[in-house]
Amino acid sequence: MIARGFETAEYRARLKAAQMAMQRHELSAILLTTEPEVRYFSGFQTRFWESPSRPWFLILPASGAPIAVIPTIGEALMRATWIEDIRTWNAPDPIDDGVTLLGDALREAAGTGKIGVPSGMESHLRMPLADFGRLQGQGLEFGDDAGIVATLRAVKTEAEIDKIAHACKIAGRAFGRAGEVARHGRKLEDVFRGFQGLLLEEGADYVPYLAGGAGPKGYTDVISPAGAQRLQTGDVLMLDTGAVWDGYFCDFDRNFAIGVPSRQTQGAWEKLQAAAIAGFEAAKPGVEASEVWRAMAAIVGEDGGRLGHGLGMQLTEGLSLTKRDHTVLEAGMVITLEPGIETSEGLMMVHEENIVIRDGGAQILSPWASGALPVL
Amino acid sequence: MIARGFETAEYRARLKAAQMAMQRHELSAILLTTEPEVRYFSGFQTRFWESPSRPWFLILPASGAPIAVIPTIGEALMRATWIEDIRTWNAPDPIDDGVTLLGDALREAAGTGKIGVPSGMESHLRMPLADFGRLQGQGLEFGDDAGIVATLRAVKTEAEIDKIAHACKIAGRAFGRAGEVARHGRKLEDVFRGFQGLLLEEGADYVPYLAGGAGPKGYTDVISPAGAQRLQTGDVLMLDTGAVWDGYFCDFDRNFAIGVPSRQTQGAWEKLQAAAIAGFEAAKPGVEASEVWRAMAAIVGEDGGRLGHGLGMQLTEGLSLTKRDHTVLEAGMVITLEPGIETSEGLMMVHEENIVIRDGGAQILSPWASGALPVL
Repeated sequence: MIARGFETAEYRARLKAAQMAMQRHELSAILLTTEPEVRYFSGFQTRFWESPSRPWFLILPASGAPIAVIPTIGEALMRATWIEDIRTWNAPDPIDDGVTLLGDALREAAGTGKIGVPSGMESHLRMPLADFGRLQGQGLEFGDDAGIVATLRAVKTEAEIDKIAHACKIAGRAFGRAGEVARHGRKLEDVFRGFQGLLLEEGADYVPYLAGGAGPKGYTDVISPAGAQRLQTGDVLMLDTGAVWDGYFCDFDRNFAIGVPSRQTQGAWEKLQAAAIAGFEAAKPGVEASEVWRAMAAIVGEDGGRLGHGLGMQLTEGLSLTKRDHTVLEAGMVITLEPGIETSEGLMMVHEENIVIRDGGAQILSPWASGALPVL
Repeated sequence: MIARGFETAEYRARLKAAQMAMQRHELSAILLTTEPEVRYFSGFQTRFWESPSRPWFLILPASGAPIAVIPTIGEALMRATWIEDIRTWNAPDPIDDGVTLLGDALREAAGTGKIGVPSGMESHLRMPLADFGRLQGQGLEFGDDAGIVATLRAVKTEAEIDKIAHACKIAGRAFGRAGEVARHGRKLEDVFRGFQGLLLEEGADYVPYLAGGAGPKGYTDVISPAGAQRLQTGDVLMLDTGAVWDGYFCDFDRNFAIGVPSRQTQGAWEKLQAAAIAGFEAAKPGVEASEVWRAMAAIVGEDGGRLGHGLGMQLTEGLSLTKRDHTVLEAGMVITLEPGIETSEGLMMVHEENIVIRDGGAQILSPWASGALPVL
């Protein structure tokens, strides 16, 4: 039985690690505005971020406890976390939507020092630009957070890995039941709908991401929504899901043959499996992301595209398995191996597994696909 | 039978309206970075925005056609929209993640003129701050978009209203089946999971939002995730969903009594219904959002909180029914009426319906709740 949430000690350790890094980078505070960043340090978990109407802020001072500056509607839920210093305003307020309250808290936390804001790849500032301008106009000095938050989040604790593994198991069971929702003649949109239902039945809290494709030799892309197209005997069907359990994602796909697959499809599938194995074997502490990419790219003939990425609190986060990403793998990083192969002009097949980097090498999190393409 | 997508003429009309407003505000271009903003003008629809790894850009020049500056992975899908000028780069690229390509396109579209970026309430810039700084360093001049995009999106076309109404019907059917997943002894997390399944079965493409609560006299808040707490006879259960069909949300809730409700609960429920009716009657073109708020607040005894909001491509968007929001209602605006009432110290009940503002008054989109609280 896996428990929801984290021990308070884990949040304290995350804060301490951030504060040590802040000292090295001479930051007086870090300002966080996005869902995963606020949740990582506070444990504040709600789907209410789906509403863009209210900004939410968490301040990490260089020493001492975090300060939450949030809309009143979130107070009861924030009180249930380990955060004690909670300041609220009645949002949304068209005159002053928390800016004065936040400015005061930042001055209290940072004095005249520099305030780090996540500013690198994958980051964004989740507050209106005009309000950020107002804060800057108050004389507060903002700069990059030196990648502190992203660097910390990239290496997972055992409790985090357990949650990702749990999400992977849920998706694995749902993929095992794909035949209940996918067959010749079924509309792709109904397959997507039905598969999301299977993920929920198998225990997903919700399904923030489902993509896929189908066609006789592969699919044109892997991000399109499903349409009214009907599955046909001879198609390859791919379903790729980010299902969430307790705020952590799995992100892997499975390919299925509708009827007996062609030799060409079987050949592509074998190459994808070989590439995933090559990626798995290359993925060790001390190895660059680009090297894992190279191991897979050599097999599938990829030139420039991404063949995997970090995952955790977000569907994709952290490093990319690309030619240009020189991030060095560390034990505790959770990544996807996602080789893709062109099967015909403008068509492709993509395969994806989830692994965690361990001291000796990688460990499988998703139920590793092997053998023949499953026939539905 | 309702069709997916929009006619190209609708996108052209949206662009033309934006361009007329840009002339009035002396903007040479508008830069869009978020999912609903890009989709509103392009029709580009994918759940891939769930991944934070890649930025996406759409430029609206003051005259002429929009320019999409996007990662290669989205090219095939963008080609299926009405957008013709599509420029791509192989993202994510740690050296230059589209910044040079975007800067060139902005210079081409805006020359030395001012580029509007949505900067007001509910907006954010979905790109790394460091990359935005690089664009500013190229001599491009950015400023507020003068609320042009938000103002346009606030008034829906008939095709948009049809999609919201369709999502409302789906949720209405699912609420009608709530007894299949909610009963005495069931864990709240299983109720949430099961209800999402019902929404999918009834035709939702996906379920980006589900919240709720349960307790003997009401619930502590309306944004917490469900836990292992079991429903008990005597509880009031509330389920609030944002289900999506073709990229448009419904957002309404239903309350249920687990067993016969107490007199107090029945009394609160009657007040909530009366407040919704008062809001419905007040919601006419020319009336301020704050007046609709006042009509409901007088009945439920609300002082400062929000009692409804706009909706459409997002769970919440546009105006807020608050004391301080003086937005004037117009025909075509779709809003929620969301009165809440304190039932006991720290406990509440909340009710929500969806309506569209019409010339004569409001029209119901969600199947209006009336009569006794449904007993499960």
